[in-house]
Amino acid sequence: MTSTIRVINPNSNPAVTDGIAEAVAPLARPGAIAIECVTLAEGPFGVENQADMDSVAMPLRALVAADEAADAFVIACYSDPGLHVCREATLRPVFGIAECGVLTALARGDRFGVLAIAAPSIRRHMRYLRQMSLVDRLAGERALDMSVAETASGEATLERMIAVGRELVSADGADVLIMGCAGMAGYAREIEETLSVKVLDPAAVALKLAEAMADLGLTHSKAGLFARPPEKVFK
Amino acid sequence: MTSTIRVINPNSNPAVTDGIAEAVAPLARPGAIAIECVTLAEGPFGVENQADMDSVAMPLRALVAADEAADAFVIACYSDPGLHVCREATLRPVFGIAECGVLTALARGDRFGVLAIAAPSIRRHMRYLRQMSLVDRLAGERALDMSVAETASGEATLERMIAVGRELVSADGADVLIMGCAGMAGYAREIEETLSVKVLDPAAVALKLAEAMADLGLTHSKAGLFARPPEKVFK
Amino acid sequence: MTSTIRVINPNSNPAVTDGIAEAVAPLARPGAIAIECVTLAEGPFGVENQADMDSVAMPLRALVAADEAADAFVIACYSDPGLHVCREATLRPVFGIAECGVLTALARGDRFGVLAIAAPSIRRHMRYLRQMSLVDRLAGERALDMSVAETASGEATLERMIAVGRELVSADGADVLIMGCAGMAGYAREIEETLSVKVLDPAAVALKLAEAMADLGLTHSKAGLFARPPEKVFK
Amino acid sequence: MTSTIRVINPNSNPAVTDGIAEAVAPLARPGAIAIECVTLAEGPFGVENQADMDSVAMPLRALVAADEAADAFVIACYSDPGLHVCREATLRPVFGIAECGVLTALARGDRFGVLAIAAPSIRRHMRYLRQMSLVDRLAGERALDMSVAETASGEATLERMIAVGRELVSADGADVLIMGCAGMAGYAREIEETLSVKVLDPAAVALKLAEAMADLGLTHSKAGLFARPPEKVFK
Amino acid sequence: MTSTIRVINPNSNPAVTDGIAEAVAPLARPGAIAIECVTLAEGPFGVENQADMDSVAMPLRALVAADEAADAFVIACYSDPGLHVCREATLRPVFGIAECGVLTALARGDRFGVLAIAAPSIRRHMRYLRQMSLVDRLAGERALDMSVAETASGEATLERMIAVGRELVSADGADVLIMGCAGMAGYAREIEETLSVKVLDPAAVALKLAEAMADLGLTHSKAGLFARPPEKVFK
Amino acid sequence: MTSTIRVINPNSNPAVTDGIAEAVAPLARPGAIAIECVTLAEGPFGVENQADMDSVAMPLRALVAADEAADAFVIACYSDPGLHVCREATLRPVFGIAECGVLTALARGDRFGVLAIAAPSIRRHMRYLRQMSLVDRLAGERALDMSVAETASGEATLERMIAVGRELVSADGADVLIMGCAGMAGYAREIEETLSVKVLDPAAVALKLAEAMADLGLTHSKAGLFARPPEKVFK
Repeated sequence: MTSTIRVINPNSNPAVTDGIAEAVAPLARPGAIAIECVTLAEGPFGVENQADMDSVAMPLRALVAADEAADAFVIACYSDPGLHVCREATLRPVFGIAECGVLTALARGDRFGVLAIAAPSIRRHMRYLRQMSLVDRLAGERALDMSVAETASGEATLERMIAVGRELVSADGADVLIMGCAGMAGYAREIEETLSVKVLDPAAVALKLAEAMADLGLTHSKAGLFARPPEKVFK
Repeated sequence: MTSTIRVINPNSNPAVTDGIAEAVAPLARPGAIAIECVTLAEGPFGVENQADMDSVAMPLRALVAADEAADAFVIACYSDPGLHVCREATLRPVFGIAECGVLTALARGDRFGVLAIAAPSIRRHMRYLRQMSLVDRLAGERALDMSVAETASGEATLERMIAVGRELVSADGADVLIMGCAGMAGYAREIEETLSVKVLDPAAVALKLAEAMADLGLTHSKAGLFARPPEKVFK
Repeated sequence: MTSTIRVINPNSNPAVTDGIAEAVAPLARPGAIAIECVTLAEGPFGVENQADMDSVAMPLRALVAADEAADAFVIACYSDPGLHVCREATLRPVFGIAECGVLTALARGDRFGVLAIAAPSIRRHMRYLRQMSLVDRLAGERALDMSVAETASGEATLERMIAVGRELVSADGADVLIMGCAGMAGYAREIEETLSVKVLDPAAVALKLAEAMADLGLTHSKAGLFARPPEKVFK
Repeated sequence: MTSTIRVINPNSNPAVTDGIAEAVAPLARPGAIAIECVTLAEGPFGVENQADMDSVAMPLRALVAADEAADAFVIACYSDPGLHVCREATLRPVFGIAECGVLTALARGDRFGVLAIAAPSIRRHMRYLRQMSLVDRLAGERALDMSVAETASGEATLERMIAVGRELVSADGADVLIMGCAGMAGYAREIEETLSVKVLDPAAVALKLAEAMADLGLTHSKAGLFARPPEKVFK
Repeated sequence: MTSTIRVINPNSNPAVTDGIAEAVAPLARPGAIAIECVTLAEGPFGVENQADMDSVAMPLRALVAADEAADAFVIACYSDPGLHVCREATLRPVFGIAECGVLTALARGDRFGVLAIAAPSIRRHMRYLRQMSLVDRLAGERALDMSVAETASGEATLERMIAVGRELVSADGADVLIMGCAGMAGYAREIEETLSVKVLDPAAVALKLAEAMADLGLTHSKAGLFARPPEKVFK
Repeated sequence: MTSTIRVINPNSNPAVTDGIAEAVAPLARPGAIAIECVTLAEGPFGVENQADMDSVAMPLRALVAADEAADAFVIACYSDPGLHVCREATLRPVFGIAECGVLTALARGDRFGVLAIAAPSIRRHMRYLRQMSLVDRLAGERALDMSVAETASGEATLERMIAVGRELVSADGADVLIMGCAGMAGYAREIEETLSVKVLDPAAVALKLAEAMADLGLTHSKAGLFARPPEKVFK
C-alpha cells in the first residue's frame, strides 16, 4: 500500500512548487511512498513577513482538512506558517521544514548555522527558535542579501552562499548548515563539498521524516497543544 | 487633544466586549484619553484554540489598518492573537494584554502565577512565554477548569479562583498573580485582598501602558521584526 | 486629586537633577500627576561603581520612608540602586529606570541594545539583567567611552552616540535602544531619527509607568521578596 | 541496492538483542533497507551505571570501525553510550536512540516525559539532556522502580507503566512519552491507547531516522566535534 | 609565615560569632593559617531582609578596607551581603559563604538542595542564584520554618532538618545539601549520616577555599566588575 | 598525619607529567599534604579527541580503584576524561581540572575566558560546559593554533598566549582567564601581569581544592549520579 505525502508550497508561485517537486521527486519510493506537491492558491507570491505568514494559516488548515488522499503533510516554507493550526485540524502528521531542519541538524553536528535569503526573516526565525527552546545550539544565521540582478546568475548565488556559509563556519562556529529557504535545495551539495560541513536541505529532510513517521504510524500528540477542538465553522 | 485607545475584543461575543468596556471605563481621562471598545465581528465566539487564534489574525490586521481614528490599540485576549501582524501593519502602537501583564508582573514581584480558564490554554501560554523568553520567573499557571454550571454563580467562581490562586502562591511560590483572561477582571480586587498578593487585571494594565506610550509617542520599533512590508493585497 | 511622583536623583550633583527635571516636566498632568525631583544629599557625585551603589541604598530607603507627600517613587539612575530595599520599606510603588527601560523595550521590539557611558557599568548592568532573568533578548551593550573633553561638545556626544548606536543595530541586531544613563535623555529623539530604531529614555518611561501604576493603585507585591519587615532602627 | 542498518545492543544479553530484533524487523524494506542486529560481546549484561557506559565506548568504536557491511549504525541503549566516539570513527551515520527519541518527541508534542527503568538512570539522562541543551521542554522523567518479581508478569509491568505514564501526563504535563529503555518497545501501543498521548519507542524511531538519513546520504558532520582524528592504535 | 583569614559575622549577635568560631577553629593550620572571627558592630541582630543586607554593605567595606592584618576575608552569612563592594575595596580575596557553598556543591553532586531557616530568605537566595546564573542545577530550597520554642531543643531542630532534608532528596532530587545559614554547622554531620547525601557547611567550605586561594595568591579579578574605583570618601 | 593527593596525567607522555609535577610541587604541605604525580601508562600520547578521552576512562577507573595509598585524586587534563566513572568507583574525592577551573573562575570574576591549545578541543569543552550548565558566564574560548615550530620557542608561545588572551579580554569581555591545558601552567603569571586580569592554572587550583576537601573530609555524593554500583568485572 502506498502512502501519499502532500508537500504544500504555501506561496502561490508555481515555479517554486516546481522547484520543490523536482528536488524531492527522487525521494519517492514506488509502491510505498508517493509525493505530491501542491501550490496554495490563496498564498502570497512569497512568504516574506508576518502578514504573509498569518494570511496562509487558515487556508493551509482548510487545505489539510479537506485533503482526504494524503497520509502526511509537509509545509514547504522555512517559516513553518500554519504548522500548529494544521496539526490541530487533522489526525495525520504535519511537518514544518524549519522544525525538521533544526531537529535533524542537532543530531548531525554540535552547532548549526542557517543561510537566510534576507535579513528580516532572521528575526522571525530567531523568535521561532526561542518558541521551540532550540536556540542554545544555534551558531548563527546570516542572510544572502542579494539583489535580484545578482540572483539571476546561479553561479553568483552559489558564490554568495559559499561566502556566507564560510562566515557561519569560521566566525560563528557552525558545523552543520541549514538552507533557510525551500528554494535553495539545488545548491546544498556544492556548498557541502566546498566548505566540508554538512548542509541540510530542510525540505528533503522533512520529506524523509514524513516518510519515517508515516511508516511508524506516528503522528503528533492529540493531547495538549494539538488536541482537536470541537468543530466550528470559521467565517 | 484627546488620544483614542481602541480596545478590540477579538471574539464576537458582545457580552465580553461589554464586560471589558465596563472594567476599563474608569481609566479614561476626559480631554486626554478616550477609550473605545469594539467587537471583532469576524471572531469566533471565544478564543479557545489555535484555529481561533489564527482565524482572527488577518481580520485584526484589517481592522487596525482601516481604523484611522485610534491612536493606539489593545488586543483584549490573553493569548495576544494577531499581535505581531498588527504591529507590522501600523505605525501606531499595538498592545497585547498577555505581554503587558507579564512584563508588568515582573516589576511588581519576583515570580508570577497565572490563573487560566481551562487547561488547554496553559500550554499555549507556555509556548508564548518561551517565545518571549520570559519563562524563567513564571511560578506556575493553573486552570479553574470549571463547568458552565459552576460559573453561573459568581460566588462559586470567586471561591474557585481563590483556591487556585492559593495553590499558585503556596505551592508554586508566586507573589504576583495575573488574571489569564480578559473576562476575569471583576474578581481581581477580592482575590488580592484574600491572598495578600498583587493581582493584575491584564486588560487594565495594557490600557494604562497604552496611555503611557501614547503620551510618550513611543510606538514599537519599525526596524526588525515589525518593519512595515511593502503593500500587498491579501486574498 | 493629584498624585505626586517623587523622582530621586541618587547622586548629589544638582545639575543632573535639573536635567532630569527638565526632561520629565512635560510628562506632568496638571490636576492629576505632579512630578517633583529631588537630589539625594548623601549620594556620591556620580554613581559609577559598587560602592556608589551600596552607599546610597540606605539613604534612599530613609528618604522614601520619610516622604509622606509622594504617591510613587522613581529612582533615576540606570543601575537601580536601592530599588529592592526601598520596595521593602513602603507600601507605595517604587520604580527603577533600568528595570522599566528593559521591560518596556521588550514590548517595543525583538532585541534591545543599551548605550552605556563607560565600560565598567556594562558588567554591572549585565549582572543585573541576569538577576532579573532578562538577558536572553539583549542584543548588546556598548559604551561611549568618551573623554571629558569630547563630551564638552553636545554635537560630538551626539555623533558618538549615533556611531555606537549604529553598531548596536547593525552588528548586534538591536531594534530598540535604551539610553543607559538618566543624563542622556536629550539625545534620544535625534538618535531615533538617524538610526530608524526606537530609542527609549528610561527615566521618561519609568515616569509614565509610575503614573500608570498610580492610576491603577498597583504597587509591588508585599508578599515574598518585598514583604515589609518588622520595624528596626538601623544604626 | 540495499542499505544495511546495523543495530547494536551494547549489552551482552542476547535476549535483549532478540527483543530489539523482533521489534524492528517490520521496519525493514526488502530490496532497500536491511536491518541486522548484533550483540556487543564485550558489553556488561546490562548498562546500568557510568562504568557500564564507559566500558562499552571503545568496543563500540572498534565494532563500528571494523564493520564494512553496514551503511548506518544504531546504538540501541537509551543512554547513548559511545555515540560521540563512534561518530568520530566512521564516515557513516551513527544514531543513538535517546537523542533520536528526544528530537522526535519535540516535533510530536509540546513537552515530553520519559519512562525510566530505575531511578539512577534518570540523573544520567538529565545530565545528557543538559549536554544536548534539550532540557527546557522535558516535562519529567519517572522510574518504574519495579522488583524483578513484579516484572515477571507482563501485565503487572504494563499496569505500572500506565500508572507512571499517567503521572507524567497529569502531574508533569507531558503530551508525548518516550520509552526510556530499548526493552520496553512491546508496551508502547497499549500505553498510548490507554493514556491518549503519543508514546515513542526510541529504537524504532532511531531505525527509521537511520533509514531516512541513509536514503538522503546525510551523515553527521565531519567538521568540528566529529572530525576524524589521525589514525592511532588504542592500547 | 602565617596567613590570617578574617571571618566576619555581619550580624551583631556575638553568640553567632562564637558558634562560627567554634565550628571553623579546627580548620586553622598552626604556622600557616590563622583564623580570626569578628562581629560587625554596626550589623543588625540578624540578617533577615533586604534592609539588613543593605545596611551592612558599607560597614563591611569599611571593616575590610581598614583591616591591615588579614590576608583574606570570609563574610559568614548565607546571603553574601556586601560581597561585591568588599571585593571592589581590596586587593585581598573576599569570600561569600553562599557563593562558595554553591560552587562547591556543583562538584560534589549533580543537583543541590538548600536548607533555609525561613521562607522569606528563599526568594532572596533564588534571586542571587539567578544573578550568578547558577540556578539550573538547584534541586530545591526548603525552609525549616520553626518557632523559637521548637529551636530551643537541639534535637527537635535536628529532626526538623532531617525531615526537610529528606524532602529535598526524595521529592526534589538533591544529592548534595547546603546548610543555608552560618549557624547550622553543628548539624551537618548527623544529617549526612542519616540521609546518605553530602551535606556542606558553607562557612567551613568558604574557610578552606580562602586558605586555598591564599596559598595560591589567587585573589578576585581587579579588571571588570571588581576594578578598584578611585578613592572617594563616602558620607 | 599526611594526606596524599594523587595527580594523574591521563596521557602517556612522561614529560607532561614532569611539567605538572614541577608546577604543583610548591603546593605540597610537609606533614600534611603530599603530592604524587603518576603517568597513565595506557593513555595516548596526548588527549586530543573523543577516542583519546574514552580510551582512558576505564584505565583511570582501574588506577583509582587499585590505588590504596591516595586520599584524593586529580585528573590533570582539561577535558576531565573519566571523571564521572572514577567518582563512581571510589569513596575518596576525585577532581577534574576543568570543573575546578571553571567553578573557581566563577568566584574570581564575572565572566571567564579559556585559552585552548587547538580549535577542536573548544567544541568538546563547550559541550562539557553545557553538561555542567555553566555556559552562561563564559566570555569565550579561543585557540592558540600554533605550529610545532612556533611552540619550540617559549617566548613565541608566551607572545601568542598574550595576544589570544587579549582578545578574550577586549573582544569577549573576560575578566578571568583559565589556562585550558595542564601544560600551560608556566605562563600564567606573565600573562596575568601583562593583561591585568586573573589567570588560573587549573591544575594548581584543583590541587588546592583537593587539599581543602581532604582537610574537610568532603568527598562527592555517593547518592545519585555517583552511587557506587555493585561490583562487576569489566571485560
